[in-house]
Amino acid sequence: MAEDGAHIAMVEDSGTWRFPASAPLRLDSGGEIAGLEIAWRSFGTLNADRSNAVLICHALTLDQHVAGTHPVSGKPGWWSLLVGPGKPLDPDRHFILCANVIGGCMGSTGPASINPATGQPYGLSFPVITIADMVRAQAMLVEAMGIETLFAVVGGSMGGMQVLQWAADYPERLFAAVCVASAARHSAQNIAFHEVGRQAIMADPDWRGGDYVRAGVRPDKGLAVARMAAHITYLSEGALQRKFGRELRRDGLSWGFDADFQVESYLRYQGASFVDRFDANSYLYITRAMDYFDMAAPHGGVLAEAFRKARDVRFCVLSFTSDWLYPTPESRDIVRALNAAGARASFMEIESDKGHDAFLLDEPVMLSALRGFFEAAAAARGLK
Amino acid sequence: MAEDGAHIAMVEDSGTWRFPASAPLRLDSGGEIAGLEIAWRSFGTLNADRSNAVLICHALTLDQHVAGTHPVSGKPGWWSLLVGPGKPLDPDRHFILCANVIGGCMGSTGPASINPATGQPYGLSFPVITIADMVRAQAMLVEAMGIETLFAVVGGSMGGMQVLQWAADYPERLFAAVCVASAARHSAQNIAFHEVGRQAIMADPDWRGGDYVRAGVRPDKGLAVARMAAHITYLSEGALQRKFGRELRRDGLSWGFDADFQVESYLRYQGASFVDRFDANSYLYITRAMDYFDMAAPHGGVLAEAFRKARDVRFCVLSFTSDWLYPTPESRDIVRALNAAGARASFMEIESDKGHDAFLLDEPVMLSALRGFFEAAAAARGLK
Repeated sequence: MAEDGAHIAMVEDSGTWRFPASAPLRLDSGGEIAGLEIAWRSFGTLNADRSNAVLICHALTLDQHVAGTHPVSGKPGWWSLLVGPGKPLDPDRHFILCANVIGGCMGSTGPASINPATGQPYGLSFPVITIADMVRAQAMLVEAMGIETLFAVVGGSMGGMQVLQWAADYPERLFAAVCVASAARHSAQNIAFHEVGRQAIMADPDWRGGDYVRAGVRPDKGLAVARMAAHITYLSEGALQRKFGRELRRDGLSWGFDADFQVESYLRYQGASFVDRFDANSYLYITRAMDYFDMAAPHGGVLAEAFRKARDVRFCVLSFTSDWLYPTPESRDIVRALNAAGARASFMEIESDKGHDAFLLDEPVMLSALRGFFEAAAAARGLK
Repeated sequence: MAEDGAHIAMVEDSGTWRFPASAPLRLDSGGEIAGLEIAWRSFGTLNADRSNAVLICHALTLDQHVAGTHPVSGKPGWWSLLVGPGKPLDPDRHFILCANVIGGCMGSTGPASINPATGQPYGLSFPVITIADMVRAQAMLVEAMGIETLFAVVGGSMGGMQVLQWAADYPERLFAAVCVASAARHSAQNIAFHEVGRQAIMADPDWRGGDYVRAGVRPDKGLAVARMAAHITYLSEGALQRKFGRELRRDGLSWGFDADFQVESYLRYQGASFVDRFDANSYLYITRAMDYFDMAAPHGGVLAEAFRKARDVRFCVLSFTSDWLYPTPESRDIVRALNAAGARASFMEIESDKGHDAFLLDEPVMLSALRGFFEAAAAARGLK
């Protein structure tokens, strides 16, 4: 494949994996999801010895459309800077897979799905899920696809949480792990921001106790407010100041409550466009999964214990200086625990003023660090 | 008065000053408020030469009940650590005055007041106001009370903005100025958080386009969400982590959307109790005034120009290390501008992990710094 270095088209595929009712997803809550569906998308070709598979785990409001063109928005996939011909993850060399998380709203089973037991949308009867449940579903998909071992599991933000959970739960099934701008547990401040978003959604009368799908309405106003509050946390104060400062939308103040400032209309746009692509109950369930996330908790608070079987996994942990949602000390805690567990961990804090969103943006240091990490891991793995 | 050092009772007074229709408050917007009312509270006695008056300016959701007992909550006034017998501002020595800002909801004219022109509550027909308008109203009150010169004007957060505006607009009428945990302009991030709160209120169907008073309903859910979002910004990440961490309310997770974590129930309580004491439209108007605040704007962006007549005022500027709403660089900008204007400015950044709320809390360094500042100013002023 492309041994002459010529540019070749990405081989793309996508689909929805439907598991039989006899193979339900078992959940941390004790419940299960029967008739599980997982929507996925892939780039590149699995090689003959099935050793070149990379699983990408997505963040809270993203989806399986990590590269290529997004089918709804028509925009490039959310990590096109990382995934594509000539990019650090290259479909010419890797089989790159991304799946919509369970609880999501882009094709995988979630609260807007039809509950096979009732024939009605789940709504709030959907079980509360965890990051480990998301990972368990991904492991079922990967196994069903005949992939015994992943070359790498990669993710940022909530995707990074899934990466850590993969390393804890299936260390023998991954060779390398990349965790960007993430944490091993959700902090009080992060829980607090999520709770504001959930309360905004649940305060919207069109939420209807979670049963809005059947009622034919949508809690768009509440969901937009939730998105606006969250969006502020994805940017740094410096980025907001540099991007918008106190710039007005037009000459002079309106002396009213229209959007006077650029930053106001930007936020309103973020809220309004989000509701077109996301489901309010999915927002509740996925934020809850993140809040529940605490990898050290099942091990008496000792995070290193979570990784004690992962000492053969090669880790890369990255953080950004201006990320106040998952600040660098959270990444350092992960690295310290990995070291204590005897695992090999590279760590880099990257200078950036773009805040948490930096992991999705053109950050040359991040991209070159990941390129170097994947190349070294490929050499160690004997991948071409 | 108390020259023997004995503890004497505070002399307290309170009232509402009603200005005749012939003396309207002129507004930055070009409009005016006729029949202005200002609710005030005072502690101590004005001395014979009327030189011991201290005006305290309150923050966004506070009121004139700076000391003594709050008439609604029954709790101590919000700055009882600063104001009281033996405290840095002592009713035995100072005449301490605090007035509810215009636009507020504790007795001064605001959007819930009756518009004398219509006999109906103002609602959104209340004019948009500015920090300078609030200060102009205070200046009318102080003048009406026969106080020509204030010994000091003191405030934190939005109160600090009013202090700076006082120094800019009435430099000859104050001797000293204390600005704590504040800024000379509202940043993009702060505007963004306010906009989230306003959108949450306006998304509540019970807001009724601002006309909820007449409709006999209240947008409590929206206002509670606004308060929850704002409340996070008043605390530091460290304070939230230390105070709550990931502590659960009961043993084990609920696997639902009840408040599992202490921080969730704390925030819900903050939201629920806030709506009992605050008016949603007041929240819109006062946040708008803060967003519009930019002291350098009328001076071509040169903040020092705003203070060029204030060189005889003695300033004390304080910030807190963990305040991310009004971080130290904002205070440094003020101090630099004061220095450039030739004013005398003391500045101290106080080590605290309590975030923005530190200015209301028992921060011994703040309290002793203020005591020292007031004593030195009193000596310079020839006050006993």
